[in-house]
Amino acid sequence: MARIDGRANDQLRPLELTPGIHKFAEGSCLVRCGNTVVICTASVEERTPPHVPEGEGWVTAEYSMLPRANRERSRRDISKLKLAPRSAEIQRLIGRALRACVDRKKLGERTVTIDCDVLQGDGGTRTASVTGGYVALSCALHNLVERGVLAELPLTTCVAAVSAGLVGDELLLDLCYEEDSAAQVDLNCVMNGAGELIELQATGEGRAFTVEEQRTLVDLCARGIREIQAIQRAALGG
Amino acid sequence: MARIDGRANDQLRPLELTPGIHKFAEGSCLVRCGNTVVICTASVEERTPPHVPEGEGWVTAEYSMLPRANRERSRRDISKLKLAPRSAEIQRLIGRALRACVDRKKLGERTVTIDCDVLQGDGGTRTASVTGGYVALSCALHNLVERGVLAELPLTTCVAAVSAGLVGDELLLDLCYEEDSAAQVDLNCVMNGAGELIELQATGEGRAFTVEEQRTLVDLCARGIREIQAIQRAALGG
Amino acid sequence: MARIDGRANDQLRPLELTPGIHKFAEGSCLVRCGNTVVICTASVEERTPPHVPEGEGWVTAEYSMLPRANRERSRRDISKLKLAPRSAEIQRLIGRALRACVDRKKLGERTVTIDCDVLQGDGGTRTASVTGGYVALSCALHNLVERGVLAELPLTTCVAAVSAGLVGDELLLDLCYEEDSAAQVDLNCVMNGAGELIELQATGEGRAFTVEEQRTLVDLCARGIREIQAIQRAALGG
Amino acid sequence: MARIDGRANDQLRPLELTPGIHKFAEGSCLVRCGNTVVICTASVEERTPPHVPEGEGWVTAEYSMLPRANRERSRRDISKLKLAPRSAEIQRLIGRALRACVDRKKLGERTVTIDCDVLQGDGGTRTASVTGGYVALSCALHNLVERGVLAELPLTTCVAAVSAGLVGDELLLDLCYEEDSAAQVDLNCVMNGAGELIELQATGEGRAFTVEEQRTLVDLCARGIREIQAIQRAALGG
Amino acid sequence: MARIDGRANDQLRPLELTPGIHKFAEGSCLVRCGNTVVICTASVEERTPPHVPEGEGWVTAEYSMLPRANRERSRRDISKLKLAPRSAEIQRLIGRALRACVDRKKLGERTVTIDCDVLQGDGGTRTASVTGGYVALSCALHNLVERGVLAELPLTTCVAAVSAGLVGDELLLDLCYEEDSAAQVDLNCVMNGAGELIELQATGEGRAFTVEEQRTLVDLCARGIREIQAIQRAALGG
Amino acid sequence: MARIDGRANDQLRPLELTPGIHKFAEGSCLVRCGNTVVICTASVEERTPPHVPEGEGWVTAEYSMLPRANRERSRRDISKLKLAPRSAEIQRLIGRALRACVDRKKLGERTVTIDCDVLQGDGGTRTASVTGGYVALSCALHNLVERGVLAELPLTTCVAAVSAGLVGDELLLDLCYEEDSAAQVDLNCVMNGAGELIELQATGEGRAFTVEEQRTLVDLCARGIREIQAIQRAALGG
Repeated sequence: MARIDGRANDQLRPLELTPGIHKFAEGSCLVRCGNTVVICTASVEERTPPHVPEGEGWVTAEYSMLPRANRERSRRDISKLKLAPRSAEIQRLIGRALRACVDRKKLGERTVTIDCDVLQGDGGTRTASVTGGYVALSCALHNLVERGVLAELPLTTCVAAVSAGLVGDELLLDLCYEEDSAAQVDLNCVMNGAGELIELQATGEGRAFTVEEQRTLVDLCARGIREIQAIQRAALGG
Repeated sequence: MARIDGRANDQLRPLELTPGIHKFAEGSCLVRCGNTVVICTASVEERTPPHVPEGEGWVTAEYSMLPRANRERSRRDISKLKLAPRSAEIQRLIGRALRACVDRKKLGERTVTIDCDVLQGDGGTRTASVTGGYVALSCALHNLVERGVLAELPLTTCVAAVSAGLVGDELLLDLCYEEDSAAQVDLNCVMNGAGELIELQATGEGRAFTVEEQRTLVDLCARGIREIQAIQRAALGG
Repeated sequence: MARIDGRANDQLRPLELTPGIHKFAEGSCLVRCGNTVVICTASVEERTPPHVPEGEGWVTAEYSMLPRANRERSRRDISKLKLAPRSAEIQRLIGRALRACVDRKKLGERTVTIDCDVLQGDGGTRTASVTGGYVALSCALHNLVERGVLAELPLTTCVAAVSAGLVGDELLLDLCYEEDSAAQVDLNCVMNGAGELIELQATGEGRAFTVEEQRTLVDLCARGIREIQAIQRAALGG
Repeated sequence: MARIDGRANDQLRPLELTPGIHKFAEGSCLVRCGNTVVICTASVEERTPPHVPEGEGWVTAEYSMLPRANRERSRRDISKLKLAPRSAEIQRLIGRALRACVDRKKLGERTVTIDCDVLQGDGGTRTASVTGGYVALSCALHNLVERGVLAELPLTTCVAAVSAGLVGDELLLDLCYEEDSAAQVDLNCVMNGAGELIELQATGEGRAFTVEEQRTLVDLCARGIREIQAIQRAALGG
Repeated sequence: MARIDGRANDQLRPLELTPGIHKFAEGSCLVRCGNTVVICTASVEERTPPHVPEGEGWVTAEYSMLPRANRERSRRDISKLKLAPRSAEIQRLIGRALRACVDRKKLGERTVTIDCDVLQGDGGTRTASVTGGYVALSCALHNLVERGVLAELPLTTCVAAVSAGLVGDELLLDLCYEEDSAAQVDLNCVMNGAGELIELQATGEGRAFTVEEQRTLVDLCARGIREIQAIQRAALGG
Repeated sequence: MARIDGRANDQLRPLELTPGIHKFAEGSCLVRCGNTVVICTASVEERTPPHVPEGEGWVTAEYSMLPRANRERSRRDISKLKLAPRSAEIQRLIGRALRACVDRKKLGERTVTIDCDVLQGDGGTRTASVTGGYVALSCALHNLVERGVLAELPLTTCVAAVSAGLVGDELLLDLCYEEDSAAQVDLNCVMNGAGELIELQATGEGRAFTVEEQRTLVDLCARGIREIQAIQRAALGG
């Protein structure tokens, strides 16, 4: 059974990472992953929230969809006076993922906020946000080193993410919107440069899944993430 | 290295499930899991939200902590005019988990809302909510059958959840608060009566983790969930 | 005319006060008053709100009903982004009542917050909250003395509350939900250990009432409060 | 000991009730009670809230203080996104008080909303709102009769309110702001045209009070309310 | 074609400015402009918002309509948890207009807040608020000089506002509600004592308008504002 | 005195209008105006808000800045639970401007919502939003005609906007951020295809301005708008 866009089951969508697209942000990256488009900016502020220990820094993320990112227009959060629960969940995931590659002591008492705003959503917006958010974060941290604010780059590894799922009986990598809507099982993986897991979320939307199936999906993601990390390195000029 | 409460690494905390503790709710269950205490009520309403297809029912969950559930008092959501993002994330998980055991066509055009209110929180409140929420839901559905509203019980399986984690180098089942705070890796599992996965969430708070470690943690959870499901069956009188 | 639960007109519902039911709170009390169940916790914080004079402490209360406390499920305040006006009114009453038994200079610059969360509501939740809130507060203040934080107990008296009403032509003490719904006149009384009034609220829901009727209702409450204060003393071990 | 404005202890402040001061509202009344100034408008809408039985009408009230009503400017509710709890409590009182003089069946399926906006607050704003709200309500109901919408006036009695309190050892009627701030005990009374009670609220802010003191304060209010009702009748041209 | 109230096309509505109508506010003015009634109060606070440079003061405005200001009752902002966007826009205009007549260095580190609350709205409420707000502000500043807080009056000019519009083919000054509703083009002008513009807002609600028409409308406003400034001077006793 | 970017005083910034950049929206346009970047999408819904007369359509706009659009990151509206007042004002302007070019009867009972989200803000975001919003709207309306939903294009004219200002003594067209911050007088103009005014807003931020200066600024805008309309026509392929 062919995929809607003709990809092989273990094939990623075309992924473009364009760093430096924002004139003002300390770091930025435009992510195009098939028809999903996310703008990620990294903003550095010289203070930390109260819960952060003295001498350490903080990395946090915010995620939002433009009202017409999807096939149907949605009302803005502010007109409902309520952060969409899905956005609340996703931005917590992005924040945890990006904190996993930063040495917070080396970062010092400053906060990097990664804003991930989805201009166009065609599935995989949370994983695209992690992948592009890492590039924006990396730019911002390099910028701090270049400007002499930091002596040393406080990055310990790289971070990327991708989804996989069970659609019918097929194991598919990097689901687009139609595939995601039809998926029985949906799994998101965040991994570091050593191929270790940082976050794993799997949901049996249509049916439960075996431990074996779960393992196969993680393996599929691991292969995809290696390709994505090569694209990240290329985008960052290394 | 002994655990703080003297348990073996693969040992659950004492778990008590007391169904029927609420005079008015169609279903209810008080969960005591070590020092974690959650009251779950299931409320049946004869209508469904707009997104639900005609002829089908809906199951949803809300999760909240009483302000003094924890070691420190927290402000109520309403005084901040903001649902705690952690609660938003958890109640979405509980809702997905409990929908996975219900035949929504057999339920018919009604909604069951599972309210999980944490009276005392000592780690594992989300998994205790799934476990107790299932009992409350089951009571409410049996009640609909007994009252003749439904001809047939719309349950397809049972659902339970537990956590496991890496603390230091130990693989521990069913983390209490102190263990959870110190965990390098934290994994939550929801499984059905066949031992299949419904939800899996794993986070490397302190360090990344290998695919192998992830598999071992899931296996540990699987064993715990089998014990929990026996306690659920006993509580439900079967 | 017999009461719905067979009580004499001037008879209280069975009242159980269980202090110390919360592992973390400095003071706590579970109140069961007939089918009304309220959990009261007292939390001590080492700071005061801005309006409190230097050198003095503060006592405040919050009141809320769990969504399924009643016969019908209600939406949570946070989903309406609005504190229920009835809760706003009741928690102001509880706060005033409990401040009336505390020597705020002896308490020193700290705040005791009494959270009253109604698990099950069958009438009289505000008076049960005052009665149980006093027990929780008393526990917390004793705890401060035992821990050596305070040299002297800053309690000046005890505080308890009860309702009475006119249902048909009967003067009834301690109304349950059905009686409260049918009441022509509803009166709530808070009194101290000397039998003096701290708060009095009377409402002619169904008809106006004479000054004479109001006096009789207060006398009825006064007798009930004496019994409640004996139960409070017993619960507090004195 | 002389009162701050030279009144006798049982003397009301000068009270002016000016009906018809609003060009658009169906009923209106400007209340000047000493330095307290409240504008009350009554708005008639041809619908009722969902909880009102078919065939019946509804009377409700909203109360608010202009930001500079008091000696110090306060922030508007909307800038805090929160109805002041004190306003929530007061508008519930006004609503109950005014419903007590209306035959809701005769009113038919319409809602009268009494808005009480305090332009200047010098104590007694809630009782002034009840007193003036009655005049605005009465105007609006007469207007419905004059316009032929109603065949019969749905008023069953009149309603007025006043405060009394214990300041030092003095029993004072109709407390102004300075007296209210210094009061040991503060009591508000709403009465109908037969001198019966509709609402009674008493608070021991500075000390507890005896049942005897409470009775004396109600008697003092009763005498004041008779005078106020004469002023209401005069204002309404009868 | 005669105007609804018989005025000439370039004739203002009767305008009454009554300063000093508020007992507590540092400055105040009641504006009656035809059937439009606005109460303006000026409140002085000895602090400034964070964005104001050290050594300077700030002038800001808030605008709101009482719920029954208009022909139909509106819901209060707080019940919608949302400042009406029209109010947001208008209060920004009033604030800018009034800052234009104050020397903020001479004012020193204090804030004057002008609250404009519309008691009755019959068109022209924003311009009436600017006109009356200036009088309230002027009173408050004189008051600061009289009390010796300021050595010198920090007013640099006076400020007044009026509307004009195209209704049918007529150029009309100072539109009332009916005219405003029917206007093709609506223009608001704020001018200083030298007849210079401070704010200009013109909207083609019903049709576009030529640059020539716009000029004529400004000229019409300029003549009206001269008259209004004479009334302001008279009201301020100069 | 040279402008910061070397333009002549009456010279526009480079303006790029790229229609059709959004895969899902019925109409869209990316606006680049110097360093200002705005994404405009037009969404068509087959319903109208309650205030719109039967048989007519509606055009409305929403405006927002991404949190890092500017030199400094701002908090999102939702985290403050408050639509930024500046955004409230601007989106009302954009909505009025775009309604001015649509025949609402020909549009029929549907709503077109123009979302203007500022990705990068360097001055002139409101005028760029009007200019690009028109292109997105035009695309969406053409789309309705092409799809046979509408028989006839309901556009009556085109709409574009630009700013001008007094900086020092210079009259400058199309202010960038630095110029806008330093401007004494700031004027925004919306005009139709006939060079007639639809909206005019002028503010004397730094000083008042003469009627003559205002006229000159409008003339300057008129010339700029003619150029912008040529770019719009080219972008729309005509």
